[in-house]
Amino acid sequence: ISSKLPDTTPSIFSVMSRMANEYNAINLSQGFPNFETDKKLKKLVTKAMKKGYNQYPPSHGVQELREEIAKKIADLYDKEYDPETEITLTAGATQALYCAITAFIHPGDEVIVLKPAYDSYEPTIQINGGKPVLIQLKGENYKVDWNEVKEAITPRTKMIIINTPHNPTGTVLLEEDMKKLEEMLEGTDIILLSDEVYEHLIFDGIDHQSASKLPGLAERAIVCASFGKTFHNTGWKTGYCVAPEYLMKEIWKIHEVTVFSVNHPMQKAYSEYIKTPEHYLELSSFYQKKRDLFLNLIEQSRFKFSPSLGTYFQLLNYSDITQENDVTFAERLVKEHGLASIPVSVFNIDQKDHKQLRFCFAKTDETLEQAAEILCKL
Amino acid sequence: ISSKLPDTTPSIFSVMSRMANEYNAINLSQGFPNFETDKKLKKLVTKAMKKGYNQYPPSHGVQELREEIAKKIADLYDKEYDPETEITLTAGATQALYCAITAFIHPGDEVIVLKPAYDSYEPTIQINGGKPVLIQLKGENYKVDWNEVKEAITPRTKMIIINTPHNPTGTVLLEEDMKKLEEMLEGTDIILLSDEVYEHLIFDGIDHQSASKLPGLAERAIVCASFGKTFHNTGWKTGYCVAPEYLMKEIWKIHEVTVFSVNHPMQKAYSEYIKTPEHYLELSSFYQKKRDLFLNLIEQSRFKFSPSLGTYFQLLNYSDITQENDVTFAERLVKEHGLASIPVSVFNIDQKDHKQLRFCFAKTDETLEQAAEILCKL
Ligand SMILES: CSCCC(=O)C(=O)O
Ligand SMILES: CSCCC(=O)C(=O)O
Repeated sequence: ISSKLPDTTPSIFSVMSRMANEYNAINLSQGFPNFETDKKLKKLVTKAMKKGYNQYPPSHGVQELREEIAKKIADLYDKEYDPETEITLTAGATQALYCAITAFIHPGDEVIVLKPAYDSYEPTIQINGGKPVLIQLKGENYKVDWNEVKEAITPRTKMIIINTPHNPTGTVLLEEDMKKLEEMLEGTDIILLSDEVYEHLIFDGIDHQSASKLPGLAERAIVCASFGKTFHNTGWKTGYCVAPEYLMKEIWKIHEVTVFSVNHPMQKAYSEYIKTPEHYLELSSFYQKKRDLFLNLIEQSRFKFSPSLGTYFQLLNYSDITQENDVTFAERLVKEHGLASIPVSVFNIDQKDHKQLRFCFAKTDETLEQAAEILCKL
Repeated sequence: ISSKLPDTTPSIFSVMSRMANEYNAINLSQGFPNFETDKKLKKLVTKAMKKGYNQYPPSHGVQELREEIAKKIADLYDKEYDPETEITLTAGATQALYCAITAFIHPGDEVIVLKPAYDSYEPTIQINGGKPVLIQLKGENYKVDWNEVKEAITPRTKMIIINTPHNPTGTVLLEEDMKKLEEMLEGTDIILLSDEVYEHLIFDGIDHQSASKLPGLAERAIVCASFGKTFHNTGWKTGYCVAPEYLMKEIWKIHEVTVFSVNHPMQKAYSEYIKTPEHYLELSSFYQKKRDLFLNLIEQSRFKFSPSLGTYFQLLNYSDITQENDVTFAERLVKEHGLASIPVSVFNIDQKDHKQLRFCFAKTDETLEQAAEILCKL
């Protein structure tokens, strides 16, 4: 057996969630809420099953849902997508990312990835024989050095992946970033893959800069989104991507052979639920309160941090507490203190350890209080 | 844009189901039932959502479900799989097939495919840079010529794909086929990919020959199965695969980056429902009655056929009716007669037309009667 991914080990999310269960620890590692998704939404799934939406939906998704997504994007980002040819429902955003990369990356193609980065991008590029070209985000605020990105472009560059709000750092791209990116890509045929699964989790009044917003980006962008992150049901595994038709046509070919289509009753339920914009517009203030609670509670701890500006993750630097590397410290935190987090090194270039852990604050206030109590004792 | 699959067009299932809707036709094309999945099963999903199983399940699937699958396979095929390391839940069997091929097929590797064949195998092989080596099934009963298969093996042969009961032909592999295959593969390191999504739909008292049954096959086999086909809910998109750990380890890497994990409430529901063996053991007699009804109703028609021995598909030869090619005839059947089927050429080598259409008989008796009435008038 010759492995496609000889260096890949099981994802850190699986490892840490399993360890959290084993040690009965508070689980702030893998990104999912420990409170419930809206009862109304569950009832809509039950209703869809009762009404008989239990067989294959169209491969690219339920028509009504595609139309509602188009409306939402037109409202929020002022960009029109054709629901019939430019929007596809996927088995979570992970599958959207997978299809987007697989549709376009051939052996030898280069893909620019800004690090730290979500851990599915690089293996997906590798599966397709592509070469991830890694660029470090800069400074405490993880700014993109666009000059460095520009210099990294070669005739083999097929794609650049951005992610805003950014997992794991909780930083966001600003309008000026998007403008620089647009300018840089003008006249090239580089595809932009924009991971926007946390689009509705952005704080302190900052506007989300979707790649759909700027024509020079939208014309080359595949934007990936997640209902699981937005509606508190990561286990329903439904997301979507949007892209101009000339790109979507190719994505469909991969989508059809990877999963063919996506859970029908869940799609029906989202079709209805998404019609009420409050269901996603209220998220930012909801999670900003959680962030603020968590940060207030650990203010007296020995951790250092900049407040997360988006996502439901907060990075904490522990270098004033111990010089252990982050994997060792994260493991000890679970085993000795009953608190699970994600060591940030797994997202870094060469797994470099910067003495940082990632904590998910999509948790009940009670859980956040318990977690903070542990953190303050360290 | 350079396409990964330049010759692939949207799947025939999407095309025909869409056309069926457009012309308000009886849809015997895409393989799904038009009657309802068990109310009990829907209630179990509702219960799972209520109980809070709405976040990421383990990536390889809900533990209880993996354990139940292991029990079922031990009972039916007398083979023990370790639920922890050898069983993975997937987003439908399509995703299982996709991961199995992608995990092992490198550019230049050859995969033996017996034709006609389900339409996802070849594009998946191509995406990975592999070469499908196509072998025609022989005669009216679509027998495998194992000598021809043996001669097709080269040092580059990495995998052979079998499918029993067989879509689209409704034929099945017999014990002697499996023994020949076992003998042929002995001493090689060829992986066997066994598509057994119709394992519980097999007629006339024939036993399903799972690749799990024979040690010489099981040691190299990835077996793919489908809850959608078995429990009448193709739109819930849940299936699984089993394989020895040394293979499953590699499949997991692909699974994690394609979808990460699979719908949690549906998995919980199946965990409970599958505990009652009648829920799948009664399927064969249920569908055999449907097959018999359909064939009795069209006995007086001008179609020629051998009764399907498994799956819920029946091939009909129309050469006594018209000499049109099958795509043209299938389209005319929808538009002029209001009946949708699948032209078999899409499954054949070089899309060769043998004047055959495939009809799905997973339909209410009333629908089958209406369809037969149309067929008898031709
Ligand atoms: C798909 S499991 C990981 C969930 C997530 O997005 C994260 O924890 O970063
Ligand atoms: C995944 S859509 C096709 C369903 C099916 O198995 C068939 O019709 O052959």
